[in-house]
Formats: sequence, C-alpha cells, structure tokens
Amino acid sequence: MSRQPEHPALMIPGPIEFDDAVLQSMSHYSESHVGPGFVATFGETLTMLRKLFQTTDPASQPYVISGSGTLGWDIVAANLVEPGEDVLVLTTGYFSDGFADCFKAYGGNVTQLRAPVGERPQLPEIEKALKEKKYKMITVTHVDTSTGVLSELKDLSALVRRVSPETLLVVDGVCSVACEEIQFDEWKLDGVVTASQKAIGCPAGLSISMFSGRAIEAFQNRKTPVAAYFASMKNWTHIMQNYEAKKPSYFATPSPQLVHALHTALTQILAKPLSERFARHREVSDRVKKTITDLGLKQVAANPEDQAHGMTAIYLPEGIKPTDILPILAKKGVVWAGGIHKEIAPKYVRFGHMGVSVMDPSRPEVDKALEALKDGLVENGYKA
Amino acid sequence: MSRQPEHPALMIPGPIEFDDAVLQSMSHYSESHVGPGFVATFGETLTMLRKLFQTTDPASQPYVISGSGTLGWDIVAANLVEPGEDVLVLTTGYFSDGFADCFKAYGGNVTQLRAPVGERPQLPEIEKALKEKKYKMITVTHVDTSTGVLSELKDLSALVRRVSPETLLVVDGVCSVACEEIQFDEWKLDGVVTASQKAIGCPAGLSISMFSGRAIEAFQNRKTPVAAYFASMKNWTHIMQNYEAKKPSYFATPSPQLVHALHTALTQILAKPLSERFARHREVSDRVKKTITDLGLKQVAANPEDQAHGMTAIYLPEGIKPTDILPILAKKGVVWAGGIHKEIAPKYVRFGHMGVSVMDPSRPEVDKALEALKDGLVENGYKA
Repeated sequence: MSRQPEHPALMIPGPIEFDDAVLQSMSHYSESHVGPGFVATFGETLTMLRKLFQTTDPASQPYVISGSGTLGWDIVAANLVEPGEDVLVLTTGYFSDGFADCFKAYGGNVTQLRAPVGERPQLPEIEKALKEKKYKMITVTHVDTSTGVLSELKDLSALVRRVSPETLLVVDGVCSVACEEIQFDEWKLDGVVTASQKAIGCPAGLSISMFSGRAIEAFQNRKTPVAAYFASMKNWTHIMQNYEAKKPSYFATPSPQLVHALHTALTQILAKPLSERFARHREVSDRVKKTITDLGLKQVAANPEDQAHGMTAIYLPEGIKPTDILPILAKKGVVWAGGIHKEIAPKYVRFGHMGVSVMDPSRPEVDKALEALKDGLVENGYKA
Repeated sequence: MSRQPEHPALMIPGPIEFDDAVLQSMSHYSESHVGPGFVATFGETLTMLRKLFQTTDPASQPYVISGSGTLGWDIVAANLVEPGEDVLVLTTGYFSDGFADCFKAYGGNVTQLRAPVGERPQLPEIEKALKEKKYKMITVTHVDTSTGVLSELKDLSALVRRVSPETLLVVDGVCSVACEEIQFDEWKLDGVVTASQKAIGCPAGLSISMFSGRAIEAFQNRKTPVAAYFASMKNWTHIMQNYEAKKPSYFATPSPQLVHALHTALTQILAKPLSERFARHREVSDRVKKTITDLGLKQVAANPEDQAHGMTAIYLPEGIKPTDILPILAKKGVVWAGGIHKEIAPKYVRFGHMGVSVMDPSRPEVDKALEALKDGLVENGYKA
C-alpha cells in the first residue's frame, strides 16, 4: 500500500507515479555536496548507472547534472559537434525535431530524415543518407514521446559501423531508458541522454547521460572551444570521475535530494535482473495494446514492431476530441496526456505505462486507466 | 523541534539547513507538469518571487529553471550579451572569475576589474573603466561565496546610470538573495540570478532569476541568434508568462517537487516583512563577527562595510590549517566549509549563517557552530 496521500494516478508518459521510498528520499536532510556521505551516494549512483546502461567499458562516462532532460540535448550538441559539422537526425516526432533545433542553435548542420507520422526511417534510406555525406553524428529518438514510435538500435548501429564507422551514434533515451532494453557496449552506442522522471522513476530535475570513450575523445579532439559553460563536458567530466572515485569535487552545486532519490530508484531497479524489468514492461504494454485494439482504436505507431513498451499514443474515434475525454478520465482519477505532435494533436491521447505502476503488482493504475478509457468512450457515445 | 533525523548541522554557505515543511514538500506526490494543480503552484511561485525581489514593474520577468545556480550565468551570458560585445566583471573572488569564464565561453569580450583579496572594486575605478569603453553589461557578485565580500548595489547602479546609462547591470545574487536586501526596481537592476539552496532555503536544483524589461528588450533586439537551447530565453520566456497566467505550457519538464518546495520556502519568507528578515540576518551576522573578532581572528572581508550578512570567511590562526579544524568541527556535529579562493585556500574557513538557522529562534545551530569553533581552536592549542 502506498503511503502517499490519495491523488489522481499520473499516467502520462512522464513524469510518472513514483515509489514511496523514492519520494521519501527527496526529503533527505541537508548535506554538503562535498561531504563524505553525499560523495559516496553520488559515486554509487554513477556506478549503478553503468549497470542500467549495461556498460562495463571503463572508458564510458556517466553524467548526472541538475536540469531537465532537454539539457542532455545541449550536452550533445554543444560538446560533440562543432559548428558547421553535419548531423543526421532520424525523425519520428516532436522530440526528434527538438533535438534537431538544439543542434542548429549550436551551429550544427542538420539533415533530418523524416518518417511519415507514426513510422520511423528505414535502414535502406538511412544507408543511402549515410553514403551521401560524411556525418559527424547520427541521432535517433529511441521512443519519441509524441508518437510512441520505438526505434530499433541494434541493426541501426551495425549499419552505421558498416557504412560510416567514424560517425557517432547518439540516442535520445528520455522515454526509453529503464523500460526498453539498451545494451550500451554491445550495441556500440556513443551516447544516450535521458531524464530522471520517466521509467527510471525519480522526480524531474536531473539530466542523466552516458557517453562512450569514442564520444569523450571526439570532445577532447575538438578544434574549436565549447561555446557553453554549464553544459560543457570540460567542466563536468572530472567532477563525475571524482565523485565516482569518492573524492569531493566542485564545479556547480548538484542537488543532494534528487541524487538521493535517484540512488533509491536505481537500487530498486537493479535489485532484479534487467531482463525481467524489460519483459514486464513488454507484457503490460502488450495487454494495453490488445485492449486498445479490442476497443477498435488505432495507435499512432502503426506497426506493432515500432510500438514503444512504456507508453501508447492512441487515435481517438472520429468525433471525440482529447478535450472531450481527458476531463472525464481526470474525474475517474486518472491523468492522461493530450497530443503534442502538431500534425495530429487534436486527434489523439497519450498513456504512459512505465516504472512502478508496471513493476509493482500491488499498484492498480494501469488497469484503472484502461477501465477509465473504456467508460469514458462509452460516456462519449462510442461503441466499439 | 525539527522532525528531521539527527544529523550534523550544515553551516556551509549553501546548501543550508532546510525547514521541515520545505523538505516535506520535496516528497509531494507526482503531478503533471501541465495539470491545473501544478500550474497554479508554479504560477504562485513566480508571483512570490516578484515580492522577494521587490519588483512591481510588470515588465520584469522571473524565471525558475531546473539546474544549478551556475545555469543563471549561462542564461545571462548566452542571451543578453552577443559575441564580441564588452562586459565589465567586477571581481571579488572565485565566483566573479567563474562568471567571467562563462561570458568568455559564449564569446563575450570580458574586462575584469579585480580587487585585492578581501576587498571590492571602488566606485572611482569603476567610473574610470565605464568611461574608457562602452560596455554592454556590467556584472557584480553581490556576495562572493569564496571571500564573504559584500558588494554595494545602490550607489553602483546610480553610477552606471549616470556614466553609462545604456549598460545593463546584472547581479550574481546566489549568496545574497533572501539574506541581503535587494530592491530590484528601486535600484534599477537589469538582472539578478540566484539558486534555490542558499538563503531562499529550498534544496538545490533550481536556477532562479529576475530580469528587467530593459534586459528582455536587449534579448529581443539581438542581432545574432542565441547560441544555446536549454538556456535560451526564447524557449523559456513565454513558458514563464504562461505559468504565471495559470495556463499550461511546455518547453522542457520542470521539477514539480522542487517547485513545491520553493513555493513553501517563499510562502514562509513572505509571511513576515522582508525588512525583518534582513535585519535578523544582520543581527546574527554582527554577533558572529564579534565572536570571531573577540577570538582574535580576522575575516577575509577586511572592511566591516564589505562583510556579507549570510556568511563569514575567517582566516585561521597561524599554524592551524582547515584540515586541522574542519574534522574537529564535524565531530562536534557542525559542518563548515574550507576555502575555495585559490590565493588563500589553505588559510581560511567559511561559515554560512542564513535561512532557517538564523530565522527560527528554536534552532541552535549558529551558537553551536561558534562554540565548536572556539573549542576546536583550543584543542589545536590556540589561545585568543
């Protein structure tokens, strides 16, 4: 049983519902950001992130920095790409467009390979693009939160290594880390950026990322200085290395309370094999998708193999708008999200099913959310 | 009585000890960042910041963004100064140097007016500098946390307006907001950047800033695009305006828990007249300074009128190093900070006395910290 006060179940694709122990960690008494207690907590947190990302390569480097998930884009765009260098952004929705805009702000020369809404760019067209130009980096939004489209990473990485081996492969994992499998070393990824408040299950406020030795080298070998300060890897890399080595170190004050909460969340995640976690998310996602299909509804992500396992974007029946259904769901104690992809925003809603709501069998939120949707549609006159 | 578990009193110049209710707000159940409950909380928080900064000018704009206080420097340097423009950085320690480095990262042409350690640049030399070159901006570190030097703002502003009225005056208020008086409108300030974890008394993780209509215009009239994304005012200004108007709006996910804690902290601060708050910090600071002087110790900030009221930087007696005294203080249950100014680091320690430890008469931390220092010096063989 939750010790949290009664409140609407937050079933948007992040922030998600949080575990009691994680929320309690947010109230940790104040500690010095350079004192031995907090330094140990932060160091352990970084080491646990290596496990979550499935990397044992000592050249890999995790970063935890106060900020929204969006800050991860700045870290990539400001440090790993120099002005005028070419970046190929695989585009599956609103958040891929955002990542592209971020590169442009820092002077990157962006090419977007854009799939139709609900689909993802396919390997043959990616291969063609990679052969046309020498890209410094290719980025992929693992799950675009605006569409629920899941991109494939393993075959993509193999393609990039075959066709353009020097191109860095960076993943926006904001809506995928801790609910979709990511094998950082095995899949030869160069960067994954994410945020605390989605499947990791820690309140918002932390940008979390992992970079490969190759990515760090690309940063170290820049010809131009980094045109950023708070987002500069130059300022943070040795700080992260020191914290992990349990040595006090200072660039900018981290948030001890958020790091404590992240420590608690990661400890919970790693208490079970990651394979079980991903299987459980897949199982619950399959159940959600089947219910949606049985209701006669279509998903924004058209192909089953392109559908995310931590969220579902659902087209509403003709004649029912998000503003018709979301308030009804709220009255039933369930918070869903409206659409955010500008081409289809008035036609669909988004349902997040990740983290503790999926992993803790005592929490009824997923079923409650599906029941509320069914009843809400009926109240809007819909018949499956 | 505090409901927090027994723990060492954190008496460094930030993060500080936090109030129970503030820490409890950190555990707030998860809410949508665009739901009506959180939108109202965030909107009220922004409105309360106007009161804390003593601005009623509707053109002023508060910003609350996930990040360390350092992010505030990026917001100033990336948005309000264009590459090649001149910035005069009044330098009173480590943190003024950091602000200067941040401007350089974004292409600003920095001149530092550097005072000897423990002093601050004087008005005649500032006037001379302002007459030598047309500066886009002048910055001042209100309290440099590395030295405890307090800079004066009112006469400085009058000077800038008289000699170089178009120059923007921006204040680093990280260690001064909520413990030193700041009259944003009356003193014609163009920007004040600060962080949550110092005298405001909310856990670390929020960059908090206030900009004048003139500063916003300088941003809007830029000739070059902002070369940043997460720190770009273009992305945040309408978001802040929408939250304050209680309208949901999205650029990057804020931290509902941190914003709740900030809301609680500001509600407590504004429950009493600000004048009482500043007077109380001055009174406690005077007591701290007198004790230090009576012990025969000198402060880094040499002149009484240049001494901060929320912290004290203290030279140790000859032959006693920070590594001799800090562990003894820790054993007595009080955490002080070592030196951070590179010219004098092994010679001094820093004591933070701001926020709830000063304002809540039931909290014994300040006296405990002074007693611990006295006893610790005696244990090191010191005789006053």
